[in-house]
Amino acid sequence: MNFNQTDKVVELTRKLENFMAENVYPIEHEYEQFVRNSNNLWVVPPVVKTLKEKAKTEGLWNLFLPEEYADYSAGLSNLEYAPLAEIMGRVEFSSDLFNCNAPDTGNMEVLARYGTDEQKKNWLKPLLNGDIRSAFLMTEPDVASSDATNIECSIVKDGDDYIVNGRKWWSTGVYHPQCKVLIVMGKTDPSAPRHIQQSMILIPMDAAGVQLVRPLEVFGDLHSPQGHGEVLLDNVRVPANNILLGEGRGFEIAQGRLGPGRIHHCMRLIGGAQRALELMCSRAESRIAFGKKLSDQGVVRDQIAQSACEIEQARLLTLSAADKLDKHGNKEAKDAIAMIKVIVPSMAQQVTDRAIQIFGGMGLCQDTPLPGIFGYARYVRLADGPDEVHSSQLGKLIINRYSKI
Amino acid sequence: MNFNQTDKVVELTRKLENFMAENVYPIEHEYEQFVRNSNNLWVVPPVVKTLKEKAKTEGLWNLFLPEEYADYSAGLSNLEYAPLAEIMGRVEFSSDLFNCNAPDTGNMEVLARYGTDEQKKNWLKPLLNGDIRSAFLMTEPDVASSDATNIECSIVKDGDDYIVNGRKWWSTGVYHPQCKVLIVMGKTDPSAPRHIQQSMILIPMDAAGVQLVRPLEVFGDLHSPQGHGEVLLDNVRVPANNILLGEGRGFEIAQGRLGPGRIHHCMRLIGGAQRALELMCSRAESRIAFGKKLSDQGVVRDQIAQSACEIEQARLLTLSAADKLDKHGNKEAKDAIAMIKVIVPSMAQQVTDRAIQIFGGMGLCQDTPLPGIFGYARYVRLADGPDEVHSSQLGKLIINRYSKI
Amino acid sequence: MNFNQTDKVVELTRKLENFMAENVYPIEHEYEQFVRNSNNLWVVPPVVKTLKEKAKTEGLWNLFLPEEYADYSAGLSNLEYAPLAEIMGRVEFSSDLFNCNAPDTGNMEVLARYGTDEQKKNWLKPLLNGDIRSAFLMTEPDVASSDATNIECSIVKDGDDYIVNGRKWWSTGVYHPQCKVLIVMGKTDPSAPRHIQQSMILIPMDAAGVQLVRPLEVFGDLHSPQGHGEVLLDNVRVPANNILLGEGRGFEIAQGRLGPGRIHHCMRLIGGAQRALELMCSRAESRIAFGKKLSDQGVVRDQIAQSACEIEQARLLTLSAADKLDKHGNKEAKDAIAMIKVIVPSMAQQVTDRAIQIFGGMGLCQDTPLPGIFGYARYVRLADGPDEVHSSQLGKLIINRYSKI
Amino acid sequence: MNFNQTDKVVELTRKLENFMAENVYPIEHEYEQFVRNSNNLWVVPPVVKTLKEKAKTEGLWNLFLPEEYADYSAGLSNLEYAPLAEIMGRVEFSSDLFNCNAPDTGNMEVLARYGTDEQKKNWLKPLLNGDIRSAFLMTEPDVASSDATNIECSIVKDGDDYIVNGRKWWSTGVYHPQCKVLIVMGKTDPSAPRHIQQSMILIPMDAAGVQLVRPLEVFGDLHSPQGHGEVLLDNVRVPANNILLGEGRGFEIAQGRLGPGRIHHCMRLIGGAQRALELMCSRAESRIAFGKKLSDQGVVRDQIAQSACEIEQARLLTLSAADKLDKHGNKEAKDAIAMIKVIVPSMAQQVTDRAIQIFGGMGLCQDTPLPGIFGYARYVRLADGPDEVHSSQLGKLIINRYSKI
Repeated sequence: MNFNQTDKVVELTRKLENFMAENVYPIEHEYEQFVRNSNNLWVVPPVVKTLKEKAKTEGLWNLFLPEEYADYSAGLSNLEYAPLAEIMGRVEFSSDLFNCNAPDTGNMEVLARYGTDEQKKNWLKPLLNGDIRSAFLMTEPDVASSDATNIECSIVKDGDDYIVNGRKWWSTGVYHPQCKVLIVMGKTDPSAPRHIQQSMILIPMDAAGVQLVRPLEVFGDLHSPQGHGEVLLDNVRVPANNILLGEGRGFEIAQGRLGPGRIHHCMRLIGGAQRALELMCSRAESRIAFGKKLSDQGVVRDQIAQSACEIEQARLLTLSAADKLDKHGNKEAKDAIAMIKVIVPSMAQQVTDRAIQIFGGMGLCQDTPLPGIFGYARYVRLADGPDEVHSSQLGKLIINRYSKI
Repeated sequence: MNFNQTDKVVELTRKLENFMAENVYPIEHEYEQFVRNSNNLWVVPPVVKTLKEKAKTEGLWNLFLPEEYADYSAGLSNLEYAPLAEIMGRVEFSSDLFNCNAPDTGNMEVLARYGTDEQKKNWLKPLLNGDIRSAFLMTEPDVASSDATNIECSIVKDGDDYIVNGRKWWSTGVYHPQCKVLIVMGKTDPSAPRHIQQSMILIPMDAAGVQLVRPLEVFGDLHSPQGHGEVLLDNVRVPANNILLGEGRGFEIAQGRLGPGRIHHCMRLIGGAQRALELMCSRAESRIAFGKKLSDQGVVRDQIAQSACEIEQARLLTLSAADKLDKHGNKEAKDAIAMIKVIVPSMAQQVTDRAIQIFGGMGLCQDTPLPGIFGYARYVRLADGPDEVHSSQLGKLIINRYSKI
Repeated sequence: MNFNQTDKVVELTRKLENFMAENVYPIEHEYEQFVRNSNNLWVVPPVVKTLKEKAKTEGLWNLFLPEEYADYSAGLSNLEYAPLAEIMGRVEFSSDLFNCNAPDTGNMEVLARYGTDEQKKNWLKPLLNGDIRSAFLMTEPDVASSDATNIECSIVKDGDDYIVNGRKWWSTGVYHPQCKVLIVMGKTDPSAPRHIQQSMILIPMDAAGVQLVRPLEVFGDLHSPQGHGEVLLDNVRVPANNILLGEGRGFEIAQGRLGPGRIHHCMRLIGGAQRALELMCSRAESRIAFGKKLSDQGVVRDQIAQSACEIEQARLLTLSAADKLDKHGNKEAKDAIAMIKVIVPSMAQQVTDRAIQIFGGMGLCQDTPLPGIFGYARYVRLADGPDEVHSSQLGKLIINRYSKI
Repeated sequence: MNFNQTDKVVELTRKLENFMAENVYPIEHEYEQFVRNSNNLWVVPPVVKTLKEKAKTEGLWNLFLPEEYADYSAGLSNLEYAPLAEIMGRVEFSSDLFNCNAPDTGNMEVLARYGTDEQKKNWLKPLLNGDIRSAFLMTEPDVASSDATNIECSIVKDGDDYIVNGRKWWSTGVYHPQCKVLIVMGKTDPSAPRHIQQSMILIPMDAAGVQLVRPLEVFGDLHSPQGHGEVLLDNVRVPANNILLGEGRGFEIAQGRLGPGRIHHCMRLIGGAQRALELMCSRAESRIAFGKKLSDQGVVRDQIAQSACEIEQARLLTLSAADKLDKHGNKEAKDAIAMIKVIVPSMAQQVTDRAIQIFGGMGLCQDTPLPGIFGYARYVRLADGPDEVHSSQLGKLIINRYSKI
């Protein structure tokens, strides 16, 4: 493990930090007020378009795509991307400005890796350009989707088409006005062996039968403008060549997709937690209670020290997971990714909870980014599989490794 | 400590549970949808009026008022009120149906205890009838209000009037359409000894100079229809006889007010946590993942067992605090109240967090009461003084008690 | 639940506290030094005999036996015994002075409840008199004994005798010089249905074939003079009428025996934790670091407050379990006993760990009772079934209770 | 940060692992039984001499000394030493076999860095050869020694000598039969500014007035053959040139000494925790309860996964602290060293506690190394300053860093 960053990344880090300082932090409050105003539901704040163009001009674009897709991107490894994603994670909405937001990142990677030329032309290109957005429909309300074999959505061949029926939810991004395409996971052959029952298929947003049922709240927040939707797929018909990679390959694609997705969430959450830490330090230094600064009170110092230790440990663990993913691929890095999935979101929730406490009432309301970071961390403890599932699988891996000694 | 309930309370418990079963749980989802709809901001769902009348008819009204005000109420002790408040805590908005909601409960108690006949006639009577609502303005954005001596709001005598200037926030209930009166804490004599600088004064909501600056969110939730407001008091003029109890008595009133207020929050939160536990049991029994019911999975059982233990302990601690408050009064029960303030909200947050995890994505969104309970618990860890302040004072009390041994 | 203590208990409490103050605390250090001196292994400090006689004279004797055996004892309910056991728990070895030490308490209760007249004459009477001591041999090194059906010790009928073969460990008290009788659990019929395979049998300590293999340490402490032994039963022959209650009744007896045993451990551990709290308060008040008393440092106050809250909650929970056991018996109180088993020892370990930290190096060594309390608490997290087993069974009970709602 | 190990370290790792496998694990139980036998108090097991010679022959000797003392040692950086110390930490007594045991390591480094030629000849050389051992006398029973300015031991010039008076405790190694020299911290000028009041002085073990008062237990364990002693220095007279570096330089030396000392403890504790993890995996795989292997039970898997995550995070944090210490020195690495001091021992205690629980009764007794690892971890939470002191200083550093943003 060599965590020293390359010159390229040092330079990108500098540019990204400058960009954030000049363009993002100054408009953060305004952005948040805009999207929380119920009159602006599912409307993208106008400043976004300008900033995306600026980011693209400065080369701060598509940073997430791994080296093998250097044609489309900065060609960074996961280890190189980590400090950049951390910086973006300091302001939840900022990933979008650099075309590095989930679930589009995972979707772009899937298309880059498995898409046909036509699929790439139709969907990957506009996604890479930031002209459209996409969603990924996997989780279903009626079954424990952390066990992917439970999935009930059906994809049935009908002549030259497939007909898709199912109910999905927690489909992030479906309410975004530019969302134009869905990657849907469903079963093409329920009678096949477990791991080849599933397929992934591309469905244009405007296909007949795609119904947005309702947006889902996270602790009362609708996450406008992208939203998390419940989506009904009611006899949706798409051409057969919309299938990705081939029938029965859905589980395989999902495995490849979720590893980086989880690591990106973790990188961003480290940025979120670091932001919370810095905010709590400023607050502690400026606030006086019972005759002395909070920063001179033992319990506050202790909470800040504990938070700093937890963040630094989680950061190192995430870097080591990124390194393993780069060197040995998804399958080998399974344990490392399970580790960060179990550790990082909980850590970020915990650190932010402490920050809220130090801020008092101000920490609960719209005056700081803390509730947003808290909600994101809490959400990721469930997204892409609840922590318990990862912990159980990790425990099994570790037992296998050491019980033979 | 005798926690056996009197026949009166057994009967009230039965009636209250029936009322909840027949009238509240069935409309819970509808209520929540109504108040979360941005078109209904600060509008009381119509069903509330009907249910309040029904509750009044059934004698389920003003249950919170202690025995000495039996004229106005059921005349229950804190210990007797505890199981009833717990039941109400199962549905956050239900306290209001029984005229048992904060901050009106505390305000009514203050008026009953310290109000002049005129003050009682003007404000206590309509409050007891449920005709109007009230708010309590203590916390200020610019200072650490957990240390009450920091308060900056000024109350200045001017002829036969007082003129009030200050900025308050986390003023719960100010956005409620029936909110007609504010109890405001401020300084009448900043040069007096610390504990007699402060006074409380009644300000009609429609007094000139009372400005609602903005509603505050708790994790993105505006808590419509009552809301938590930031309020500017800009040269608000009220008659001198609006003062409560007399100049310099504010701190004394606050002390008397906050003890029961904190205990009521804790009682309700135990109900909230118990609800979360029951929901997580149902979920665990009905959901299947990886080939077996969640209820057959060790980690789930362990979380449920841990939650049940924590709830039962917190419940007993709260009952013992209520008993101490009944028998020995606010001052003597200071340690017991600090204990529950430190323990109960954290416990409720923790239990609800586990319930959310067991529910998966469903637990995060508007489909269960879990995010509401979670937010309420998180809020109470800060309301009426952050846990850290109570813990420090409790630590000091305990050290004093035992270090002399 | 009525936790108000009867006059009888108030009086016993006063007498017991006086006894401790006059006779036990003053010799505590001397006792500990005696038993830790390797020259005194398995020797009872001479002071014990004197103090036992004194305790008997004062009526502080056999307090543990429930009301139905009032002939032999003070005739206290579990609820009445709780505050007395708590006081004894403040000095680990003191229970023995009042003939209230495990495992003799459980063994006496078994003999009182199930013994034949002859068994009572031979063993119960001298045990009640404090003339002899006993051990309880259940756990085995080779199997997970928390699952009692795993037990491998065999009890085979041979003419008018039984022949017992097995290897037991964690047999507390076998090294005590007065240990004269063993109650042994083993299988009389391995082919019978699970719950009637087991029997209990009385084995005199001096029976041929009873071999003390070695004493077991708890964190390096041999717990002289009683010890925890590994015992080999090698073709031990005893008369058939040594069987308790009858063949196949072992599981039934164990169930009845373990409930009170667990609750007694918990009562004592609350006393241990309370002692640790008081010690840490004294230390905090008398020790100065970085220019101020520890008691003025926020983190110390916070740890003390947290400890006080945890102890008080655990105490109330234990009282409520005792009350349930008194009123509804072992089977009905299963959930309450599982709760305290899961909560109390962990709490006592945690509180003592904090006390050690506040004492610094002094807290680790023989200068305070803290390592002893810590070790006892850690031990009870495993004794009578590890916490995880109780938590799992409790979780199942709770889920059954609420999932039907 | 580049954690890739150099070829030299890869080779040393291989050799050390082989040495442990061939020579240490096979005699571990025998060693432990020897030193726990009260007949062998303060006697070194005979096997130690043989193994030390073997280790020296294989070049596994004095690995701890940093590069600048490559004359004496393998010349490893802290980062290079880390994986080796971790391996030694798997068997607590093994560090001694490689002459890498505390407090001799710190004492040797002090002598190498600050000793005069004569001091080096007399004490450093035999220490490096493993012919003698040493102790470090800093902590005092009567004052909070974590605040070094409290130290009361006096070092008074008297002609060509110094006279030392004081009472020290937790002096590790003083009972070892080969302990020949003490490094003592005391005050030469109590009226000087705080940081130059103290000096360090060399005292031969056989100097008149050096009295071993008593050995101190850690949870009942005397840690024979080295022990932790209480030592009385009663008018001990030594030549003036026994002073180290000069009067008033004691605090400065201590700062330099304690950084590496703390990091070595942490490296070893990671090895201890890793050992506990591996043991618990083996146990989980081989033990059956309630009809299935522990390794198939969710709670066990979860505890193992959690432990693996905590160990890996602590390991990375320790490596990063070693790297910072190598590159920027003690002062700059203060935050990193405070972090590991706060995190690693607690982590090791926690992991070992879980392992004990999975082992059941066996985990508490002398049958596994778990109680030893547990005791070592618990001890280090207090040694070289209690965690709370480091946490507070770390909190202050972090606040200073970020509150200016």
